[in-house]
Amino acid sequence: MPKPLTLGEIASRLGGRLVSGAGILIEQVGSLEHAGPRQIAFFSGPRYRAQLAATRAGAVVVPAAAAQQTRLPRIVSDNPYAYFARVSQLLNPAPAPVPGVHATCQIDPTARIAASAKIETGAVVGAGAQLGERAWVGAGCYLGDGVSIGADTRLHPLVTVYAACRIGERVIVHAGAVIGADGFGMANEEGRWLKLPHIGRVLIGDDVEIGANTTIDRGTVDDTVIEQGVKLDNQIQIGHNCRIGAHTAMAGCAGVAGSAVIGRHCTVGGAAVILGHLSLCDGVHVSAGTVISRSIRKPGTYTGMYPFDDNASWARNTALIRHLAELHARVGALEKPRRKKRKAANG
Amino acid sequence: MPKPLTLGEIASRLGGRLVSGAGILIEQVGSLEHAGPRQIAFFSGPRYRAQLAATRAGAVVVPAAAAQQTRLPRIVSDNPYAYFARVSQLLNPAPAPVPGVHATCQIDPTARIAASAKIETGAVVGAGAQLGERAWVGAGCYLGDGVSIGADTRLHPLVTVYAACRIGERVIVHAGAVIGADGFGMANEEGRWLKLPHIGRVLIGDDVEIGANTTIDRGTVDDTVIEQGVKLDNQIQIGHNCRIGAHTAMAGCAGVAGSAVIGRHCTVGGAAVILGHLSLCDGVHVSAGTVISRSIRKPGTYTGMYPFDDNASWARNTALIRHLAELHARVGALEKPRRKKRKAANG
Amino acid sequence: MPKPLTLGEIASRLGGRLVSGAGILIEQVGSLEHAGPRQIAFFSGPRYRAQLAATRAGAVVVPAAAAQQTRLPRIVSDNPYAYFARVSQLLNPAPAPVPGVHATCQIDPTARIAASAKIETGAVVGAGAQLGERAWVGAGCYLGDGVSIGADTRLHPLVTVYAACRIGERVIVHAGAVIGADGFGMANEEGRWLKLPHIGRVLIGDDVEIGANTTIDRGTVDDTVIEQGVKLDNQIQIGHNCRIGAHTAMAGCAGVAGSAVIGRHCTVGGAAVILGHLSLCDGVHVSAGTVISRSIRKPGTYTGMYPFDDNASWARNTALIRHLAELHARVGALEKPRRKKRKAANG
Repeated sequence: MPKPLTLGEIASRLGGRLVSGAGILIEQVGSLEHAGPRQIAFFSGPRYRAQLAATRAGAVVVPAAAAQQTRLPRIVSDNPYAYFARVSQLLNPAPAPVPGVHATCQIDPTARIAASAKIETGAVVGAGAQLGERAWVGAGCYLGDGVSIGADTRLHPLVTVYAACRIGERVIVHAGAVIGADGFGMANEEGRWLKLPHIGRVLIGDDVEIGANTTIDRGTVDDTVIEQGVKLDNQIQIGHNCRIGAHTAMAGCAGVAGSAVIGRHCTVGGAAVILGHLSLCDGVHVSAGTVISRSIRKPGTYTGMYPFDDNASWARNTALIRHLAELHARVGALEKPRRKKRKAANG
Repeated sequence: MPKPLTLGEIASRLGGRLVSGAGILIEQVGSLEHAGPRQIAFFSGPRYRAQLAATRAGAVVVPAAAAQQTRLPRIVSDNPYAYFARVSQLLNPAPAPVPGVHATCQIDPTARIAASAKIETGAVVGAGAQLGERAWVGAGCYLGDGVSIGADTRLHPLVTVYAACRIGERVIVHAGAVIGADGFGMANEEGRWLKLPHIGRVLIGDDVEIGANTTIDRGTVDDTVIEQGVKLDNQIQIGHNCRIGAHTAMAGCAGVAGSAVIGRHCTVGGAAVILGHLSLCDGVHVSAGTVISRSIRKPGTYTGMYPFDDNASWARNTALIRHLAELHARVGALEKPRRKKRKAANG
Repeated sequence: MPKPLTLGEIASRLGGRLVSGAGILIEQVGSLEHAGPRQIAFFSGPRYRAQLAATRAGAVVVPAAAAQQTRLPRIVSDNPYAYFARVSQLLNPAPAPVPGVHATCQIDPTARIAASAKIETGAVVGAGAQLGERAWVGAGCYLGDGVSIGADTRLHPLVTVYAACRIGERVIVHAGAVIGADGFGMANEEGRWLKLPHIGRVLIGDDVEIGANTTIDRGTVDDTVIEQGVKLDNQIQIGHNCRIGAHTAMAGCAGVAGSAVIGRHCTVGGAAVILGHLSLCDGVHVSAGTVISRSIRKPGTYTGMYPFDDNASWARNTALIRHLAELHARVGALEKPRRKKRKAANG
């Protein structure tokens, strides 16, 4: 249970302008829709005005532009959502691991494990592996030989980290993620596939978060690199040899094919795909469902989502896509006599 | 091995009109293509007429319209596929769990576990968790603190259920599914991502089935809700705060982004994506590979699949999509003189 | 650490034409970009000419056409990438399992396990299961009753193989893969979904590789079949009753819906989707991000990727797709008077 704070205490710890209600006691964050009198919600913009009017929250975080749109106890912030995140972090601190290695774990005697680390039921830690201070390895996780896990990093249950991969500090890895499996590197020789041994590693920087069942393949020869502050949602696939730049975020089911290089501060929407061997510069935003098929050298937002429609309209229009080139030719033919006329008139 | 039944016994238990062959012994279901004389198959329509003619099945389930298209022992049903499912359920009853907790499990002493429940090798059950009658937890599963599993629910091996999530009765969860991981909720503050603690839960209703490696994130503040009778195939991603309406089914690799609300009796095709914060009314059918980018308020089938073609034709036509606006303008220009003429004629 | 070889030894073992540097000692493979003097790299074509010029690799594998483009010690090969793969296999042989069953495993007494097999921590092997010579089962794997694993096959950690499934020889299955879960087979009966018991199996041939978190469903009635030499990347979903032909390869996040039949020597790009009940002949190549919505009877490359663009251009052009039929009609109307004229002239 989080420790309650007054609205005044919150403002004095996190900043923001307290408009009223300094003494209101806040126990938890809530949504405008469901918060009660001991909860604080946030208001992000006009789309939620009706919810703001109807909310029973005890207090709200609002942008300056909306400071007068409610009489509730409130804090004004430039970035209400980030402010709300900080309030929630204050009220819901991540639990600290209780140090200790469960009796059912199999820890190689050559592994070096900080005394403050916690390893839960049935986990396996290979030869020469290292766990930093307060590292927390969930039940059933598997860390191969030579794996390194930084301080304050938490692996949720059933995470696999193949041999030699390195994970930084304050990283969160959710259940079922697989880090360092062999990439899809094969040479075709007379119709048969010849496997390339994968001798590269996966290197993950500090403050990265990796979602449930996400997979990141090790490099074929060089390493796959996830830079600091990268956030990967669930079920993402990162191919071998990729480099994902610092503070880039990708939504669920995105896929990055092998050897792609993605810049810093990029975002990749859900189920978007980046093809192999491409590079995206810093500050590129890829919309959901988009396939990026060539490199991008200019920051901006890029989209390639097919417009959905009711099925009959879709069928009618989409069939014509296969005839676009003909349509262009027909329009060109229609334009021809006029061009001739114009030419004749000018000539 | 299922217990054999005569065709007459099947018809008397499940209804349907027995045309002939009451005494035929049926041991198992089969496909038209591979069934033998002790197996019953089903015929769903004209597409499979050749297979019906050639089948060596001992009996078939057919729709009324096809009652005379075979001389085989047969049962006529309005819904042959559903009838076939019921026959298969009769012949292949789900195994009942043999009660007991394996010695290698780690069960918190405060967990309340029905005496009829079964927990397999190496599973972990957290503090205050509850397991209903005949609940069956597979090997290596992890149930966090306060998790609740309803009666007759089965978790296959290596399922993770994060703390406080609740699963109803008669639910099936396949291997590798992850329920209740943190959603992808982050606020951007000067280029860095600030994590929102996820204090909501995942609530799963009765009679739900969840496929292998599917992930369902917990709510940020409120709960993620999967209503009764929902069927989710493998590798599906359901974002935080979503609500999936009762009896909705989604095929493999579908993705639902955060805070989307999907109605009852919907279907979502394979690899389709529903973007965040949208709502779909009851009875919406989304085709495979479609990205739904705005809310849908009218039942029906919606599609947004790009038509595939041989690569050369695709390349030729698809390049022109980037020039559609120009093409429209050119057609408009061609129409202009005529419009003028018409106007002049009318004016 | 791999055992070093001279370039001459490599050429005498693997063939290829040694141009110079027979005595050079090679310890490891490397990339043109990062290899040092004890490493061998490969050059595949003009795109990497600058890297070839700048490389500090000790030796390179080159195609005949590039035999004179470098003065480095080199081997000429018709297929430099395959040659490089073979060199890497020579220098990085897959580790052999140290036979033995870890004390924490739960092995059914009726299972038949070759004396040379290795089973790691906490794995479960069901009744009647069989493990061939040198089979290697990773930590936390679950093999259901009657599962069969061929000789020299390796399951990485946390792989689930449901009851009765059969895996061939020299197969590699990466962490988190799930083989044999129930397929998504349900009949709709008055708005409720009725589950079809899945009594088919998954049969996997020899020399198959299956990526991390990939899922392959068992057949509803007949079996799901993955033929020999198939290579599946991570996070692929193969539906019930599918057949994937020998030596076909699929990139990450691809999905194959139920009962699809894919030929031999096909390739399926990342995140591509093959809809259910289709068949693709041998030698079909599906591009990334493509949805295949009807059967393909002619070998070749097929694509259906929507072209991405900067967001504003995309929005402008894509909105017009919903009006393609109108545009066609308008162009038809423009053509009409001309057609009449032509008709009049000809008539």
